[in-house]
Amino acid sequence: MTLSVREPFELWCERRRALVEHFLEQILPPADTEPRRLHEAMRYAVLGGGKRIRPLLVFASGEGFGAPTEALLPVAAAVELIHVYSLVHDDLPAMDDDTLRHGRPTVHVAFDEATALLTGDTLQTLAFQLLATPLPNLPANRQLCLVRELARASGSHGMAGGQALDLEATGRKIPLESLQALHRRKTGALIRYAVLAGAYCDEPDAQAHATLERGANALGLLFQITDDILDATADSTTLGKTAGKDERHAKATYVTLLGLEGAIEAARNTLAETLTAFTALGPPAERLCELARFVADRRR
Amino acid sequence: MTLSVREPFELWCERRRALVEHFLEQILPPADTEPRRLHEAMRYAVLGGGKRIRPLLVFASGEGFGAPTEALLPVAAAVELIHVYSLVHDDLPAMDDDTLRHGRPTVHVAFDEATALLTGDTLQTLAFQLLATPLPNLPANRQLCLVRELARASGSHGMAGGQALDLEATGRKIPLESLQALHRRKTGALIRYAVLAGAYCDEPDAQAHATLERGANALGLLFQITDDILDATADSTTLGKTAGKDERHAKATYVTLLGLEGAIEAARNTLAETLTAFTALGPPAERLCELARFVADRRR
Repeated sequence: MTLSVREPFELWCERRRALVEHFLEQILPPADTEPRRLHEAMRYAVLGGGKRIRPLLVFASGEGFGAPTEALLPVAAAVELIHVYSLVHDDLPAMDDDTLRHGRPTVHVAFDEATALLTGDTLQTLAFQLLATPLPNLPANRQLCLVRELARASGSHGMAGGQALDLEATGRKIPLESLQALHRRKTGALIRYAVLAGAYCDEPDAQAHATLERGANALGLLFQITDDILDATADSTTLGKTAGKDERHAKATYVTLLGLEGAIEAARNTLAETLTAFTALGPPAERLCELARFVADRRR
Repeated sequence: MTLSVREPFELWCERRRALVEHFLEQILPPADTEPRRLHEAMRYAVLGGGKRIRPLLVFASGEGFGAPTEALLPVAAAVELIHVYSLVHDDLPAMDDDTLRHGRPTVHVAFDEATALLTGDTLQTLAFQLLATPLPNLPANRQLCLVRELARASGSHGMAGGQALDLEATGRKIPLESLQALHRRKTGALIRYAVLAGAYCDEPDAQAHATLERGANALGLLFQITDDILDATADSTTLGKTAGKDERHAKATYVTLLGLEGAIEAARNTLAETLTAFTALGPPAERLCELARFVADRRR
């Protein structure tokens, strides 16, 4: 616990967003170095907006549980790089074939398909390069753990595997358990990593870790349910990406499976579950509770 | 130096190839785990043949310079995973649009484009996951160095950046220095990493490291020149991939720039340069010399 006055949530978010964006700006290759077109596209993809939810989760959890602050910024940036790489590849014609992201043309539209492919590839690489660069106050074995867990969360048993399951499920009716298993990987794994990264920085307290993990898993689910609700109810301008896409692509979602009312109720229950877990952890998890409410209430 | 009888080169290669293939077979996700189609494609891509030059370089250098043998297998496998990921993505329609690799249909032909995209993505992730899994007899800070340098060799300043430069150079006439700069990244960076990985496992002797690096850079160049010569002179069946592709795609190559005779002479000079560097390192670099000759003489 700190004795200083607590920043209001909005200001806290704004400051951390500015920090991570400045850091990303610094570590991305300059657009005037070769290969210029690729470097320009990498910067376009990463610096083009976004809510930065995953970096905020890294800060929320890390600050709450006493991780060395110098370590949080690169971890937050690395998670965001993985997230952005997945968006760039998901938007490609062979995948979701999308043209709008953060209110601007997607990378393959603004540049070309080959460049978008390489942009995703190199953003992934940059995430691991960043996490493997020695950090002050963090032992090398803890850092290695951060790398390993990020890889685990991103790979075929995590985010990218969830994307593969999503492709398989498109156009088919799947049971709720399969949809949840899919989303535990597709969105859940990286959100879980962001929440737990602070714990990876330290030798974890087994019980607190288990509770944090329970909250992180529920939060990942909450994020996906609200995403599905927004896709069905918001317009493209508000979202900054193409709305109504799930229905058009016959995607399996919480809304198509439970109906809009059912999905809204599932979101409400999942928020309660998230808050129960985080609240049990006391004051260190206050920001995580605020972020969970933010995820539930967001309009884009 | 060892007192035991030295394995003949062919047998040495065969045994290490078998080792790395068995290891890859073990660490790749089983094809009967979800997502099955993706896991099947990952295995198809990695276990489908290939000369395994980069793993052999890791063994050659690591064994010669006394790296802990337990560390060499995962490093060799990680480099190969990065190499295969790049092939899978390079073969995609948006890039080289190729249908034949190791004498079999490319991944996007055997599966589909979305699966090929995710296959490349997850093979890259797996490489970093593998390298970040604690290894016996290797301090965590050395392992972190192996991760960082692999990322550097693969990213926008390395392999993928070279691929971007290659795309930019296609259909244009570029000077020899630009071609060399391109290939130092596209093929050279990963070959350099494979040769130096043994040195990353240890606190390096600065002078030996510099000589090893000079040899590694020349070897990378040699590999690319012979690749260009083979593309122009061999048939697809021998190569196991589409021959004559460079000319059809108006690629900048050593053959298009120097003519076939000029390219053969460049290969001869570059082999000499490679051997001069490696020979200066004495007996520990004997396998590297053998591998350099193998690269120069290969028929596919």
